[in-house]
Amino acid sequence: MTIHINRMKENLDYVGNTFNSDTEGYNRLAFSKEEKDAINWLEEELKNNNISVRRDTIGNLFARIGPKDKPIYAFGSHLDTVKNGGLYDGALGVIAGLECLLQLKKFNPQTAAYELVCLVGEEGNPLGGTFGSRVIAGQVNTDDLDEDILQAAELTKELIQEASNTIENYAGFIELHIEQGTVLERNGNKTGVVTNIAGIVRNHITVIGEAGHSGTMPMEYRKDALVMASEIVQYINEEVRKLDDGTVATVGQLEVRPNAATIIPGEVEMTFEVRSDNKERLETFPEEVLSWVRNNYDVKVKPGVRKPANAMSDKIIEATEQAGITLDFPTMRMMSGANHDTNTLAPFMDTGMIFVPSIDGISHNPAEKSDWKHIENAVNIMLETLKSFDQ
Amino acid sequence: MTIHINRMKENLDYVGNTFNSDTEGYNRLAFSKEEKDAINWLEEELKNNNISVRRDTIGNLFARIGPKDKPIYAFGSHLDTVKNGGLYDGALGVIAGLECLLQLKKFNPQTAAYELVCLVGEEGNPLGGTFGSRVIAGQVNTDDLDEDILQAAELTKELIQEASNTIENYAGFIELHIEQGTVLERNGNKTGVVTNIAGIVRNHITVIGEAGHSGTMPMEYRKDALVMASEIVQYINEEVRKLDDGTVATVGQLEVRPNAATIIPGEVEMTFEVRSDNKERLETFPEEVLSWVRNNYDVKVKPGVRKPANAMSDKIIEATEQAGITLDFPTMRMMSGANHDTNTLAPFMDTGMIFVPSIDGISHNPAEKSDWKHIENAVNIMLETLKSFDQ
Repeated sequence: MTIHINRMKENLDYVGNTFNSDTEGYNRLAFSKEEKDAINWLEEELKNNNISVRRDTIGNLFARIGPKDKPIYAFGSHLDTVKNGGLYDGALGVIAGLECLLQLKKFNPQTAAYELVCLVGEEGNPLGGTFGSRVIAGQVNTDDLDEDILQAAELTKELIQEASNTIENYAGFIELHIEQGTVLERNGNKTGVVTNIAGIVRNHITVIGEAGHSGTMPMEYRKDALVMASEIVQYINEEVRKLDDGTVATVGQLEVRPNAATIIPGEVEMTFEVRSDNKERLETFPEEVLSWVRNNYDVKVKPGVRKPANAMSDKIIEATEQAGITLDFPTMRMMSGANHDTNTLAPFMDTGMIFVPSIDGISHNPAEKSDWKHIENAVNIMLETLKSFDQ
Repeated sequence: MTIHINRMKENLDYVGNTFNSDTEGYNRLAFSKEEKDAINWLEEELKNNNISVRRDTIGNLFARIGPKDKPIYAFGSHLDTVKNGGLYDGALGVIAGLECLLQLKKFNPQTAAYELVCLVGEEGNPLGGTFGSRVIAGQVNTDDLDEDILQAAELTKELIQEASNTIENYAGFIELHIEQGTVLERNGNKTGVVTNIAGIVRNHITVIGEAGHSGTMPMEYRKDALVMASEIVQYINEEVRKLDDGTVATVGQLEVRPNAATIIPGEVEMTFEVRSDNKERLETFPEEVLSWVRNNYDVKVKPGVRKPANAMSDKIIEATEQAGITLDFPTMRMMSGANHDTNTLAPFMDTGMIFVPSIDGISHNPAEKSDWKHIENAVNIMLETLKSFDQ
């Protein structure tokens, strides 16, 4: 029993090319018609294979097979993409999950139930990323949500509350995903077995200077917010490199105000993001940087996203490695720098992730690509891992 | 014969409050309905005072009095504003010019003609700033102009050509303007006599890095375009301060691509502007910086605005200083860091500028303000200077 790699390839191409709102790359934005249409297609595929489907009130899809009273091992990913995204991010995990479910059904499991899960709104969106998993894990407080944003997503607080807290009976969750980095490629394109998912601490720093005419304000009287922001960007970059423990820090977004060639910048707003799989570092490093920034500049700091670092369970890590040995496909342990729905679910059940090498590490980009030979290895490892839970 | 300061104040308030497309500050953008309406109002005011008016094919206004065969001394400024601009920039020079013309008319000049000039599109705009003066000075090549931009400004190449090269008979031009800086305020609020207008050399630098996922790309593999751009901002700021000769350099506009919290910046585009009244420095300093930038980074450089530095004529500088002495109002010589229509006209006739102190140096901003006592001194000096040309 091995997976049908051609059927997977056809399904992935079909989803990518059929449900796309734009011509540059792949566009199935969170809560868009394209995301809904893609999940509806998945529902039809499952029904055509005589598998019953449950949809919750926010659109998440669940398709279970196997005995009713046995531990449930879930697996899957998401079908939404970033704007002008790639073919593989999220969709590959769902299509791989569909393939595994079809294979497991033939296998007729007796001591474990299996469930394909497709989660909505995983990518960054106005309701926050990993939305579908956060709702089913009871991690979304509807009091915090803005009515206009909810309306744009065609959701209500009631619909979210009804879908909340529905994971108590799950034994485990496995997500297959492209790596989105170059660690596997630099290590012989083994299949990745994720041990930890990095946490995220994001802050929004606004540097306050004084706007002025670029011609009439002598250098010695200037308080140029961009010059100050540049020093902060430098400092962050230098300090995080000193840690040398895998922690990364990024200023990805920066806005100059008023942003005109002839006006000395009066204000600069920027994101300051830290990711680390070291829980303590994730607390201390951002605070150390912000303390230096506050001591040296006139700034406002607004805390942003906080996602804790989580370890995957030894049970699933070891089962995945054992599957690699059984199938004779090499695996390697690694951490995930990217966040995933699995990170949301990790505190509540045994979780694991299987990474497929990304060519050149390119992701969130139309040029995102993985080798189908590497995909085939990873999905077969996933299927073997899942089978091992039915004994 | 002194000016009517209350009439000036009323006129300035009327223009500011009547012709405004927005509620935040003053908005009479270049080529807008508000700019046209304001110039039409000026035309009516002049006609009501029995002064004949000529409008050229791009909308510039000229109102001449005095003998037909004598040297023409022109004066004025512009009525357009930046977005959310102030009450005084440009408009004060036009209203002061109107006041001077009305006074000079009573004086019945015999050996000099006087002309109020109101020039269109002085502020930054898609056709380039100081547009009205560049057209009449024959400095606009219509081959370089984009048809869509022309259409948006309700202009054609033919209309521009017809208004071109019309200044050969002028003897001089004087522009009264707010300083837009703090030099006069720091020096006892004297009236400023401009000796030089700084030239401008602007370049657009695009720094090329490599975009990547902020979680999955280790620090050692990154080519973060914003980290590199920050080093360039620092370098420019440090090097220009070393010159210590009044040269200023500004990165006022900076755009990060793709500008998302979770993506390492792949590209940063920024303006690099240098202003100096030292013609040689204005050539060498930008090139020295760009050479360092090219040696250290992967960049594309696109040359932008080039405006030469120009000296005002001794004749007008001395006449203005003499007027200050005659009226017992203190003056001081200074350079203009900001560009003005006068800079365009300087190579073709005797030119001079009279600066009014700006409170806190604030300009291009609704809070722009000058003391009416200082305005009154400056306009009286301007009137006295103009009178001195009729002898």
